[in-house]
Order: sequence, then C-alpha cells, then structure tokens
Amino acid sequence: MTYAPETPEIAIVGGGIVGLVLAAGLTRRGVQVKLFEQARNFREIGAGIGFTRNTVNCMEKISPGVVRALRSGGSVNVSLDQTDPKSYLRYINGYGLQREDDPMYQKPLLRLDAGIKGWETVRRDQFLDDLVKEIPEGVIHLQKKLSMIVDEEDRDKVVLQFTDGTSVEADAVIATDGIKSTARKILLGADNPASYPQYSHKVAYRALIPMDKVIAAIGEYKTHKQHMHVGPNAHLIHYPVNTNTIGATVVISDPNNWPLDKPTTARGSRKDVLEALANWSLPVRNLVNLFPEELDQWALFDLAEYPVPKYNKGRVCLVGDAAHASSPHHGAGASFGVEDVLCLCTMIPEQTGQFTRELNLSKGDALRAAFETYDKMRRTRTQWLVNSSRRVCDLFQQPDWADPAKRVKAESCFEEVKDRSFQIWHFDSGKMEEDTIRDYKERVGASRKIKKMNGVSCKATLDTSSEPEWLFSA
Amino acid sequence: MTYAPETPEIAIVGGGIVGLVLAAGLTRRGVQVKLFEQARNFREIGAGIGFTRNTVNCMEKISPGVVRALRSGGSVNVSLDQTDPKSYLRYINGYGLQREDDPMYQKPLLRLDAGIKGWETVRRDQFLDDLVKEIPEGVIHLQKKLSMIVDEEDRDKVVLQFTDGTSVEADAVIATDGIKSTARKILLGADNPASYPQYSHKVAYRALIPMDKVIAAIGEYKTHKQHMHVGPNAHLIHYPVNTNTIGATVVISDPNNWPLDKPTTARGSRKDVLEALANWSLPVRNLVNLFPEELDQWALFDLAEYPVPKYNKGRVCLVGDAAHASSPHHGAGASFGVEDVLCLCTMIPEQTGQFTRELNLSKGDALRAAFETYDKMRRTRTQWLVNSSRRVCDLFQQPDWADPAKRVKAESCFEEVKDRSFQIWHFDSGKMEEDTIRDYKERVGASRKIKKMNGVSCKATLDTSSEPEWLFSA
Repeated sequence: MTYAPETPEIAIVGGGIVGLVLAAGLTRRGVQVKLFEQARNFREIGAGIGFTRNTVNCMEKISPGVVRALRSGGSVNVSLDQTDPKSYLRYINGYGLQREDDPMYQKPLLRLDAGIKGWETVRRDQFLDDLVKEIPEGVIHLQKKLSMIVDEEDRDKVVLQFTDGTSVEADAVIATDGIKSTARKILLGADNPASYPQYSHKVAYRALIPMDKVIAAIGEYKTHKQHMHVGPNAHLIHYPVNTNTIGATVVISDPNNWPLDKPTTARGSRKDVLEALANWSLPVRNLVNLFPEELDQWALFDLAEYPVPKYNKGRVCLVGDAAHASSPHHGAGASFGVEDVLCLCTMIPEQTGQFTRELNLSKGDALRAAFETYDKMRRTRTQWLVNSSRRVCDLFQQPDWADPAKRVKAESCFEEVKDRSFQIWHFDSGKMEEDTIRDYKERVGASRKIKKMNGVSCKATLDTSSEPEWLFSA
Repeated sequence: MTYAPETPEIAIVGGGIVGLVLAAGLTRRGVQVKLFEQARNFREIGAGIGFTRNTVNCMEKISPGVVRALRSGGSVNVSLDQTDPKSYLRYINGYGLQREDDPMYQKPLLRLDAGIKGWETVRRDQFLDDLVKEIPEGVIHLQKKLSMIVDEEDRDKVVLQFTDGTSVEADAVIATDGIKSTARKILLGADNPASYPQYSHKVAYRALIPMDKVIAAIGEYKTHKQHMHVGPNAHLIHYPVNTNTIGATVVISDPNNWPLDKPTTARGSRKDVLEALANWSLPVRNLVNLFPEELDQWALFDLAEYPVPKYNKGRVCLVGDAAHASSPHHGAGASFGVEDVLCLCTMIPEQTGQFTRELNLSKGDALRAAFETYDKMRRTRTQWLVNSSRRVCDLFQQPDWADPAKRVKAESCFEEVKDRSFQIWHFDSGKMEEDTIRDYKERVGASRKIKKMNGVSCKATLDTSSEPEWLFSA
C-alpha cells in the first residue's frame, strides 16, 4: 500500500478495546498505523461488557468492522420483554422488603428505557478476539512496552522508545494504554499525583455463570433481563452476555486503603461476598452462591481524585482510560473511549490531510492542533463521567437502604440516576462531529493568521488557556 | 359575588409567598378562597429572592397580578452586561488564587446563561407586601393558627379548627404553611420524623447593603451582576435586589447539631463570619465587612432526611415548603412552590367544576382526585430539588478548594452544577399543564367506570399505589 505524502503515521500505545477500535477506525481511513501492546497476547479482564445504542452508532461511524466484531462475539440484546422490543435497565431493591408469601420478591425501583436494541452485551474476551481480526496485518506489535516518548519541536517526528531497547518514529502518538498508562506518566511527570490511579474504595467480584443455573436461582424473568440490585454498601448487576451465559458483578464498599504498589487483583472468596450480603434478598444470595468458591477481588481505581489536567501535549494525546479512567458503575468507560476515538477519526486523516495540503502545515502541526480540539471536545463530558460514576455508586449503595425509616429518602435518588444515565445514552455524536470540525477549522484558521503575522513556522499550540472569555478582575 | 353550585370553597393555610400566589390564582379563577395566617401581620424572613424566567412564566399563567406584585416591588433584572441582554449566574473562586498584581482578582469558573431577562430579583418583604395588595378583600384572615383538620369521608365538608377555638368549613384544604407546617404534622402524625424539619448542617447570614458601598468593596463589575463565590466549607452569593441595594448571603458548614426545640434563628456576629472566611479572597472579605456587626444566624433546615411520603390525603394537600422544604442553595424553593400552584390552578376550578357538573361527582371527590394528580405531577421534581440543593451546596463547599493539588478535581464539578441549574430553569410548564389535565381526566374517567360498576358513590381515592406497572416477583 502506498500513502499520499500528507497521510500521517500514527503510533497507538496499548491494545485494549479502545486501542483496537482506534486502530480499526484509522486503518479504515487509510492512516498508517502501528499499534504497540506490551503483553504477549491480547487479554481482557472482567466478564461482560455492554454498549448502549449511542455507542454502537459511534462504532458504526468509526468502522463497520467494530460492530461486526461486537456481534460476531456473540453479543445479545438484553432486557427484552417478549412483548416489548425495547431494552431496559431495571433497578430493584436488593435488601430487605421481603414478602412472606413470596421469598423471591424484590421491590422494583426504576426502569430505564434504552430504546429499541438499546443494550448490546458481550463477553469481553470474545469481543477483543474478534476486534483483533478486524485489524490489518502488520499493524499490531506485541511485547512492546513503552519506556519514553521524545517529542522535540524541531524534529519532524516523535520517537517512541521501548523497554527492549528498540525505538520507532511516528507523526504522532495516541496512547490508549489504560488506567495504568505509561504515556500519562511521561506527559505529566512521575511526581504528579494524576499520573497514578486512585483507589475508589470499592472492590468488585465478577463471574460468568451458565444461564440454566441462574434461572433456578433467581427465576426466569430476572435471568433474561438486565437487573441492578441496590442496597446498603453494595450492589449487584447481572445481564446475559450471550445466549447461554450470565455475567454478574458484585461491588462492595471498602473503607480501607489499597496501596498503589499492591496488585489491583487479590484472591477473594465467595464466602467473603456472602458475608457482605448476609441480610440481602434471597435471589441475590442465590445468585452469589453460583459464583466460584475462589474468585478474584478487583480493587476499583479511577482518576477521580487527581484528574488529568489536559489530555494532550504536543503530538501526544491520551485516549480512553489513559485520559479519564472511571469506576465502572455507569457501565460506560469503554463507551466514552469509543466516543474519544470517533472524535479523533473525525479529524484524522481527512481534515489533517486537507490542512497539510492546502495550508502547507506540517503533519505534526496539523496533528498538534487536532489534539487541542480533541481535548476541548472531550474533556468536560469525560470528567463528568468519572465524577458521576462515583456518585451513582454512592446512590446505589446508600446506607439508608438498611433503615426502613429512610427508605422514602433512599428511593428519591432515582430521578438523579435517570438523568445521569440519559446524559450518557442520549449522546448526540453527530453534534460532536460537527463541533469537532468547526473547532478544528477555527483553530487552524487562527494558527494560519498568526503564521502570516509572525512570518515564522506555526507550532499550532494555540488556545491552551482554560480561562473563559468573560475573564475579569474587579 | 355569587358562585355556581359546583365552585369549590378552598381554605388555604399559611400566608407566605406561595400561599398568597395560590390565593391570587384561585380568586382570579372565581374560587371562593379563605386564607388563614397565624401571624398578626405578614412578614418575610430573608433578604432578597430571585426568580428565573420559567417561574415568571408560571406566575403569568397563575395571575398577572403576581407578576405585577413582583415588579411593583422594585424587582430588577440582574447579571446584565451592558452589551448583553441576557442574565447570567457567575461562579467564581472565592478562596485563594490571589494575584500579586491584582488583589481583587478571582478566577471565573462558570457562567450560566439564564436567557433574556432570565433573572428577576426583589426584596422579599416588598414582594410580599405587594402580593397582599393583589388579594381581594375578605380572603385573608390573620391571627388564625391551625390546630386540627377534620376530614371525614361521610361529611360534605372538611373542618379546620384553630387555636382560638373557632372553626370553619371548606370543600378542601391546601396547606402552604411552610417548613414547620402544622398541616403536615396533622396528616403524617406527630410520631413521623417527616413531620419535622431536619437540620442540613449549614447556617446562613443575610444582609441588605447599599450599592455604593458594595462598589467600593468589590468593584463595579461584580456589584451589578449576580455572583456566587465558592470555597472550602462556605459560599457567598450576592445580587442587586433593586436599583440601590445588594442582597448578600453567606452559607457556612456547621458540623454540630441544632436541636429542633432551639429557635432556628440565633444571634450571630460579623466577626464569626469573617473568622470562617479568614483566608478567602479580598473582595469576599470586603463584602462581609459591610454586614452589620450583629446579625441573625439562620439554621438551614429542610425535608431531605425524612421526605414526606405523599403530598395529599383525602381533601387536604401540602404545597410548597410544607410538602418539600429545600435548603436554599438552588435559589428555587419558592419557584417550585409557584409551579405547585400552577399545577393546582390547572385543575381548580375549571376541571373540577366540569367533572362535578358532567359526572355528578361531589366537589370533595373531584378535589380528592385533583390532589392525587397534583401529588403524581409534582412529587418527583420537587424531591429532586431537595436532594439537589444539598448536593450543589456540597459541590460549592468542597474542602478540595483549599488544596491546590485538588483544584482540577474541584473545578470539574461545574458540568454537574450546570445540568442541575438547567433542569430547574428549563422547566416546561406547558407540558406540566397538559400532563396534569390528561392525568386528571384519566383518573376521574377511571373512577367513573368504577362508579358505574359498583353502583355506589365513588371516593376517587384511586391509584395511590407507587408500584410501577412492571411490578414482578420471580
């Protein structure tokens, strides 16, 4: 394959879901891509993953191959009634409110309408495997662990150095290397607390369970539909991940600290989970009884306490969890990474190439400006998610659920849960694309004027100020 | 004046802003209204009050007299730039971030667009005085303190008893007797914690200050515009309440308890406030220095911890603070009471009269059903406000503001502040009116069918269940 001279060469660091979706989107658009993954093989932690319709729309725009991978991975539409083509996310009381005449009863609290085929869920490992198949040969480079990025203004290319002593050059670097991002630490510095993930004081236990066993444990109705069970200091979500398997996750509050040097996965046991859920409803305990006796305990870290102040620097930008790792309580972390990718694919390579050709901008300068636009477009929404995820977990896990006198208060949280969920699900990706192109054009237009005024090469490092236009003093 | 036989007679308990707005709306619609206020005179606590455009729209629909009272009370549109006809609410950093070259500098954080003439503010006492003038003679009865409501199913009328031994009858009672509502205690019972307001662990200090002094203290720009100064464990808001006066409120966190039997107002001093704001920006301290040396300290109570489970019972309903007293941090407590009033005026007397005439429903039954609809229409939004007001106060007063390493995190709250404010300001009152009429018709239509089936008088106490239609067990 030959490339036009203005086509950028992009290095992607990290081969998780978001990095592979980005590789699929950029290669489809004719970009020269090299993806570097530190591991020997691709692997995904966690059990299932779900995407709402707005995210699948973004995937379609990025590359039909991504949707193909999602669906060939055996994804299912969840939360369907036989009589209703819509998907729902149902919240129910997981604690107390037992009825003597029906030990399986749980009080319904909220039903969120996700629309027609509004939720597609899949096993994480299957989705990842099928995503890899969508990436052209020669793009993926395994066992390449990043050690340094050298981005010097007077050099034509950025240099990536790896721990094996090798290095490569690219016009820009997009880091999708996750919550423990090495690229983030390189950009922010080792002494910046935002370089390191922060413990959210929640631990998760995940399991994949055969559907027939789940039916016996919690009943047919709940088994086939996505349900969130809420209660004091814990919550449990479950949904089908394919036609014969249920993915279930229990999240439990943990007042203790989790040192950063301790692995984020520890050995746990079903017994621990059952103890934490001792007084919960029968279906919840039944379901947890189907978890393996020994299971992993995942400490949930995020970037809420020390957010990344800026997602880009020069010709490097952070995408997905590397930029805005969130706790998983909205089930939207990967979705927001997919939105990030669509934002970048809106500019690269069509817009960047046009500016390179028509404005005689260097590829590096065109990409620098694109990353500025990316930061501006994505920052507010993604930071909101990080905060909102912690917030809804607090609402799901209100200690008030355990106090009958506080139940009216506890239940009043769901208007907020609805608003927050709809803010995620009703994302207008078409508007983001329009805003992205407009901002990028204005930004490069402005850089062009400055260039003319100064008569020197433009670095396109414009508008990094976060002061609004109504800045004032007394 | 003579009334058609189907015109209901309504007793209003409590003569605050919401009670008077209700009296104005109902009398304008030809309802026979008696308003009972326990005090010897009308008086309003607090300094200024502001209404956004959506609330003024509701007032216009309730009665042009309410808007007339607002404006004759000297209301002003605040937060105007000379070049911009819109009103804004501006959030600025009140703590730290001093600039050596400009001691009056404060970092701007958020500017919320309230639209053209989007905020009208007024002195509370002036608004109340002018509202009273809009109420027809003979409606208002002062020095009438409610002691009991007797609402017996087989009696044609509800009886209100007062502490002076007198009593009156009415077709229904609407209680607007505020956060310490007697009617609420009668409905819920003295042993229900929701009968009593709950301390929100915030105290407020309010002052009215001549504008020329404020200009000298904080500068001309800030003086004429509404500003919220945020910082650790406190916040301060100020805005013009007429052409020569500024209303300012400081809210300070208080970890202590405030016993319910202690008066909610205590003596405080400017010195206390200055101590709490010791390290704040110069303009904040300058402004507080203009407060009187001795001033009232208001303990802020609300109904957040123990919300009222239902706003109506039989022929009695709770409106405004009596139903859903909120802390004042959204500045929307009275506004939500005004929305409540519009909801009731949508049904009374036109719809209630029509059902009384055409369906041969008793006035009491028509009003019972109307109050059910009122509860359904208003409950979710008003409970949301009570929670949201506490939430935004927590965001304004994040301890993180004091820690330079946490400033990026602290500032990330404003997307949520914006969403919450717009949820208040962008209220579609026309949709509420439509939904109210539809629900009321369906409710009475259903009651009519039941009536036909049973062949007995309908009590119209339908659909009190809060279980959603997707109720299920296993």
